[in-house]
Amino acid sequence: MRFVQFKKEGAQWLGLRVDADRVRVLGQHSLDELIATGEDLSEFVESLPPEEYASLSELQFLPPVSRPGKIICVGLNYTDHTRESNYEQPAYPTLFLRVTTSLIAHNEPIVRPTVSDCLDYEGELAVVLSGGGRHIAKADALSFIAGYALFNDGSVRDYQFKSPQWTVGKNFDGTGAFGPEFVTPDEVPAGAKGLLLETRLNGEVVQSASVSDMVFDIETLISTISEAMTLEAGDVIVTGTPSGIGWAREPKLLMKPGDVCEVSVEGFMTLRNPIAQESSNPSSK
Amino acid sequence: MRFVQFKKEGAQWLGLRVDADRVRVLGQHSLDELIATGEDLSEFVESLPPEEYASLSELQFLPPVSRPGKIICVGLNYTDHTRESNYEQPAYPTLFLRVTTSLIAHNEPIVRPTVSDCLDYEGELAVVLSGGGRHIAKADALSFIAGYALFNDGSVRDYQFKSPQWTVGKNFDGTGAFGPEFVTPDEVPAGAKGLLLETRLNGEVVQSASVSDMVFDIETLISTISEAMTLEAGDVIVTGTPSGIGWAREPKLLMKPGDVCEVSVEGFMTLRNPIAQESSNPSSK
Repeated sequence: MRFVQFKKEGAQWLGLRVDADRVRVLGQHSLDELIATGEDLSEFVESLPPEEYASLSELQFLPPVSRPGKIICVGLNYTDHTRESNYEQPAYPTLFLRVTTSLIAHNEPIVRPTVSDCLDYEGELAVVLSGGGRHIAKADALSFIAGYALFNDGSVRDYQFKSPQWTVGKNFDGTGAFGPEFVTPDEVPAGAKGLLLETRLNGEVVQSASVSDMVFDIETLISTISEAMTLEAGDVIVTGTPSGIGWAREPKLLMKPGDVCEVSVEGFMTLRNPIAQESSNPSSK
Repeated sequence: MRFVQFKKEGAQWLGLRVDADRVRVLGQHSLDELIATGEDLSEFVESLPPEEYASLSELQFLPPVSRPGKIICVGLNYTDHTRESNYEQPAYPTLFLRVTTSLIAHNEPIVRPTVSDCLDYEGELAVVLSGGGRHIAKADALSFIAGYALFNDGSVRDYQFKSPQWTVGKNFDGTGAFGPEFVTPDEVPAGAKGLLLETRLNGEVVQSASVSDMVFDIETLISTISEAMTLEAGDVIVTGTPSGIGWAREPKLLMKPGDVCEVSVEGFMTLRNPIAQESSNPSSK
């Protein structure tokens, strides 16, 4: 199944994508809550009243999960990207966190902030967990995936390197594009192995790799992270980006207002975001 | 005012600390919600029915905010600590994030995990925000502080340095001690300037500095972070630790089961946590 969350008349709605353009409207439900309560998604869909449909192209998308308890991103998880970033490949996953205020949905603009013009793309595959707790064995890890989605880990590079920690450059408002659809594991090879991940900027392929090229595959990530942290329903792991980032190119390739960035993984609806300039009006409140 | 959150009969309660041992019980309220809705805390307290009291020593504490939207920690914010950690002092705040699953309350054990014996303390002052949005001017920043609390940023040092990002070493379950009380700004000098911050391990002072020694003071932190991220009600900034950490000593001073670690700031109730060993039972669920 392929779920989408969208906004209509100020409320949050859930839909089931049934083909290239049609979405079955499931009502005002939240995937966050369905995952948190451990609902069987097939049974949930079957229990609903008969169909009403909407066109995918008319939807105002929301991220597939709106307020994940944690968003754990993995850096340096493809060797070519580690090399282009001038790091030695660490033997342990390089983790950083994102805050929910950085998230945007499909079609929403990735925002180039007023303070920097060093806005870069990073196409990635994300997994949303159904739970898991602590000390998850690698053999059990994939059973805690509630679904998959795409992610553009938009990075403000000069801010990323202003201090030893990347946090601020990875957490600007409007830089974490997440969606469009939440794809249940039965639609995807185990651990998404072998799928082609691509990022395109203005139609040109800028990143292309197999998900199998990850240094730490998805089961290893889940198991390793759970060595330290309790994994909860709705937590998201963003699994890392392959080589081809704009910052490592000569000359650098930076995203600017008017550009369009797309992330695709074989079998998933493409995540597409235009780039826009932050409005210069201060908005402290 | 000085609020405490505690657990009683499976529910979350709010109290007002009135003296060294007495707490006025305010009922089943959540400081998270009161802050999120922008409630005037004085008016809220005045609106409540007459007093019932409990003894502070009987309470089972909860963190002063249970599920902050973000927990932004500041590294390298005291020059002596930057030096002992073998870093050059960055000209921009070094930020990292904590997840809520790492939080524990006053009196709860800081957990030494099964995978490491490199558990260290970091006494810090935390601020809880009432909101703020983006692009907060430094001159306005302190007006967005809802309250102050103490924090022990327990760090699993070998995991902190397994990759270029500190995240995992800062996010083990049961390592982020937060509390005991939430102190409103009228009880504290502006920006907590001049207050003495101390950490004690088994009664011995191991860290001692003035909050005024911060490289980036609280108003600068709030203003700078808001350059990148929307600050929301309930967000927490943990403002950094002074020198004296165990990992930088020769020989290293590590926390072990049976130890007791305390963080105090002048005028605040002391945050006290015993150290316990993680149970070796796996708990994947």
